[in-house]
Amino acid sequence: MRVAFQGERGAYSEEAIIQHFGQSAEPVPRPYLKDVFDSVESRNTDLGLIPVENTLEGSIVQTYDLLNERSLKARHEIVLKVVHCVIANHGVSLEEVKRVYSHPQALGQCRRYLEKNGFEPVAAYDTAGSVKMLKENGLRDSAAIASSRAAEVYDMVVLAHGIETHKENYTRFLLIGSDDHPPTSKDKTSISFIVDHKPGTLYKALKAFAENGINLTKIESRPQVGKPWEYTFFIDLEGHRSEEKMRHALDKLQSNSHSVKILGSYPQAMKR
Amino acid sequence: MRVAFQGERGAYSEEAIIQHFGQSAEPVPRPYLKDVFDSVESRNTDLGLIPVENTLEGSIVQTYDLLNERSLKARHEIVLKVVHCVIANHGVSLEEVKRVYSHPQALGQCRRYLEKNGFEPVAAYDTAGSVKMLKENGLRDSAAIASSRAAEVYDMVVLAHGIETHKENYTRFLLIGSDDHPPTSKDKTSISFIVDHKPGTLYKALKAFAENGINLTKIESRPQVGKPWEYTFFIDLEGHRSEEKMRHALDKLQSNSHSVKILGSYPQAMKR
Repeated sequence: MRVAFQGERGAYSEEAIIQHFGQSAEPVPRPYLKDVFDSVESRNTDLGLIPVENTLEGSIVQTYDLLNERSLKARHEIVLKVVHCVIANHGVSLEEVKRVYSHPQALGQCRRYLEKNGFEPVAAYDTAGSVKMLKENGLRDSAAIASSRAAEVYDMVVLAHGIETHKENYTRFLLIGSDDHPPTSKDKTSISFIVDHKPGTLYKALKAFAENGINLTKIESRPQVGKPWEYTFFIDLEGHRSEEKMRHALDKLQSNSHSVKILGSYPQAMKR
Repeated sequence: MRVAFQGERGAYSEEAIIQHFGQSAEPVPRPYLKDVFDSVESRNTDLGLIPVENTLEGSIVQTYDLLNERSLKARHEIVLKVVHCVIANHGVSLEEVKRVYSHPQALGQCRRYLEKNGFEPVAAYDTAGSVKMLKENGLRDSAAIASSRAAEVYDMVVLAHGIETHKENYTRFLLIGSDDHPPTSKDKTSISFIVDHKPGTLYKALKAFAENGINLTKIESRPQVGKPWEYTFFIDLEGHRSEEKMRHALDKLQSNSHSVKILGSYPQAMKR
């Protein structure tokens, strides 16, 4: 099975695919998020992995916009604990390191460690890309912050592990394919809908779920480009779209809003 | 007046400060978003500018988390139209350009232009930082994508203007200071609050605003780190916290949720 992801080999997305599938899937890197959707639609890959949310950084709204525009469905949720490592060339010791390269977000998340060790942070495009750059240039006074997977992919050495300031750092991904997932005992459903930009419209729309005892796990409003008086909402719900109370709630939502779209029902991830 | 912003000289944030204050404020660059808050709290600068939302990229949740943690208040809203330019060294013509450097988001937003002209996109840390790099290295076969402000700051040349695929690309900023803004005729109020993770809790909380005829312009849920059964909500409302119906609604919200915090009331921005 081939699973497309956005980023370079060794990215956290690749680690998420391996966490979920083990050796049974081949991760396929793609430069842009849009390419991940294209790749599944053209059947170049069987599935795609898209990031939707990170504990520290928040939602990745481009993902939601693409899910809304395209006809692919979310069919599984994967939650990855983000563990940042210091990675260097073979034979380099921590004492030799002066500069540390990584994506600015990763540098920010490891700021306390960098300051304590007196390392100079150097902002780069990408976590895994920084490891690749160190390797290609054979730098011996520098290290990179990336996933342990990146060290494996580029045959580099992990000098320190778990250097992030806040340990509770998770990224939530969705697997997308041509269909969503049949019901299990513990599912989620992602939907989008539009309400007019007037007092009380969101309140009325949410009544459908409150009355049917359905829990929301996420809500986000998106202004519509070129339509300042309409808002798109993205909501995650507990339950499968085929359950009776969910069907009632979605029917009721149709009468209080418009353009209701089911982005997929899928088994909830277990945090590891 | 000194106004701190996150990023390099020539960043879009600096452009937003100049759009709002003209020559009456001095923009002060800071490496991290947290530094912008520190800078205002320590009175090193009078105000700070923080990005909260972009049409294409969504919310900047770190901004909301920091507003929630700190005691500074939002006191003005600024909306900047993001216009991407192709920038190069003096004497370089578009025909000589082979590679174009910029932040991956900016490259993605200008993909159609890059493909049409056969330019190779090269991902870099920062938009303004790419212009600085071209200047320092005197590159003549490359250009960068950044704001026209970046061309001014680094004394470089704009070769093309408005090359983004989607023209409706706005970033919304808040100015922060020790107090929020007195009422005007057209204000917004940003608040945060916490509800238990149970069916219907958000619905009940929003009743306060529906009943008082108060419009929501934005809503976002944030899982609480280490507290999986509580959610923080960030909501923007139309009106000033001192208005009677807003005071009624906020009182009612107190009884249906907890940890209600007013992040500030401020005049609404005009889109330019």
